[in-house]
Amino acid sequence: MSTDRRPIGCFDSGVGGLTVVRRLLELLPRESVQYFGDTARLPYGSKTRPTIIQFSIENTRWLVEQDVKAVVVACNTSTALALDAIRRKFDLPIIGVIEPGARAAARITRSGRVGVIATRATVGSRAYSHAIKKVSKKIEVFERSCPLFVPLAEEGWLEHPAALEVAREYLSPLKRHQVDTLVMGCTHYPLLRGVIQQVMGPGVKLIDSGEEAAGEAHRVLEMEGLLAPRGAVARHEFALSDVPGRFTEVGSRFLGQTLRKVRRVTHEDGAWRI
Amino acid sequence: MSTDRRPIGCFDSGVGGLTVVRRLLELLPRESVQYFGDTARLPYGSKTRPTIIQFSIENTRWLVEQDVKAVVVACNTSTALALDAIRRKFDLPIIGVIEPGARAAARITRSGRVGVIATRATVGSRAYSHAIKKVSKKIEVFERSCPLFVPLAEEGWLEHPAALEVAREYLSPLKRHQVDTLVMGCTHYPLLRGVIQQVMGPGVKLIDSGEEAAGEAHRVLEMEGLLAPRGAVARHEFALSDVPGRFTEVGSRFLGQTLRKVRRVTHEDGAWRI
Repeated sequence: MSTDRRPIGCFDSGVGGLTVVRRLLELLPRESVQYFGDTARLPYGSKTRPTIIQFSIENTRWLVEQDVKAVVVACNTSTALALDAIRRKFDLPIIGVIEPGARAAARITRSGRVGVIATRATVGSRAYSHAIKKVSKKIEVFERSCPLFVPLAEEGWLEHPAALEVAREYLSPLKRHQVDTLVMGCTHYPLLRGVIQQVMGPGVKLIDSGEEAAGEAHRVLEMEGLLAPRGAVARHEFALSDVPGRFTEVGSRFLGQTLRKVRRVTHEDGAWRI
Repeated sequence: MSTDRRPIGCFDSGVGGLTVVRRLLELLPRESVQYFGDTARLPYGSKTRPTIIQFSIENTRWLVEQDVKAVVVACNTSTALALDAIRRKFDLPIIGVIEPGARAAARITRSGRVGVIATRATVGSRAYSHAIKKVSKKIEVFERSCPLFVPLAEEGWLEHPAALEVAREYLSPLKRHQVDTLVMGCTHYPLLRGVIQQVMGPGVKLIDSGEEAAGEAHRVLEMEGLLAPRGAVARHEFALSDVPGRFTEVGSRFLGQTLRKVRRVTHEDGAWRI
């Protein structure tokens, strides 16, 4: 069976995708990761389809130039609005975060009532509803955008009274709809798992889209004969379009380990350059 | 005395600068405004100096290409980090929002204890402290970044319990320092004036940096013989690098009147193109 030592490419609008990388590293400890975070232009979730497609294609092109063997779109907004455009443009495996999370939700729900929380752009695309209904038309899906969750997670106010007030406001319609399963459809949200679970109650199962996407990446790499060989030593690199002083601190919180080898790339003539 | 019918250029990272335009239109009803909001790359306040300088110069270049007679940098973050760079690069009057607000604070304070709330980048630059101390070295300045105020204002949660919790957290150190004057050093913050005043108490005077900048623009245009002639009819245009569906709604709230003539410009080869 063939193997491949090249890194897995992974991009996000910023640091949120590091929660996906964290799951990848847990599941596939021999794999190297080349990460790109578009911190100069984040967030994507409040922006429109043409802008998100343009940014996502530029990011993927840069990863492909780094000779990655596959790309994980570690951003729900890019997956929702640009996954098809990226797949049409590039000829390597492209893994999104939405279908795996949607399939998990469809598998887990007992009541057939699933909630999805995500950015405004992701909710506007209805990507989760479509993906869940592809598994079963009978499942009712209730989507809700939570624009303040991203800045709260980046500020690190994970258990602050303000986080609880915000969560109550956003989640109360989903509670009224009595969902039994809730997809955290933005890679930032797992950091707020505590307040989200507190507001939803212990009976509601939370789904981490990044965790599901890591499983999907494993299956795709195995199928395509692209897994790293036994004994391969993983080397990870992190590239960003802007490197704020707090990045190492915030990023390490998201990744669950200390970030090393962070470099800045700049945008020139419609492309990222080191 | 000479006059000039060309528009005043005005840019911000997004919609916040419309609070400055609002003040400009109130003060100078004959002036036309050409606005540029970099909505594709907002916010700037969490980004670094090189990135903010690059974006600010690109925005100013586009305004200059539209044949504006002066540029109001309607963004505290751009003013704090890029005003000198812009002035070195372009040969027309460039008006920032920080010096006018700083002078107003120095004039108004009785206790000699001034608070400044702004983005992380603005606070990190210490631009307000330097500008206030240029007026009087005796004034003590206490700066505090409030990253969640921008997304709260954009979400329109101006009097929500969450806004009050966030304001309490950010403002309590300034209350402890017993400031009698507080500069709202970000063009988004005047929308949250209600909760800010409520937390600070009625004895604290709030300064709107946009209002002060409009006065400064008036003085500069008059001095340079650039005011529009009597009988001139103002025509305003709004250009954005991304045009979200909610822009007209949110922008109109910031501007205090309905937005018309919004067009999208895209970024090509390091420059904005219509």
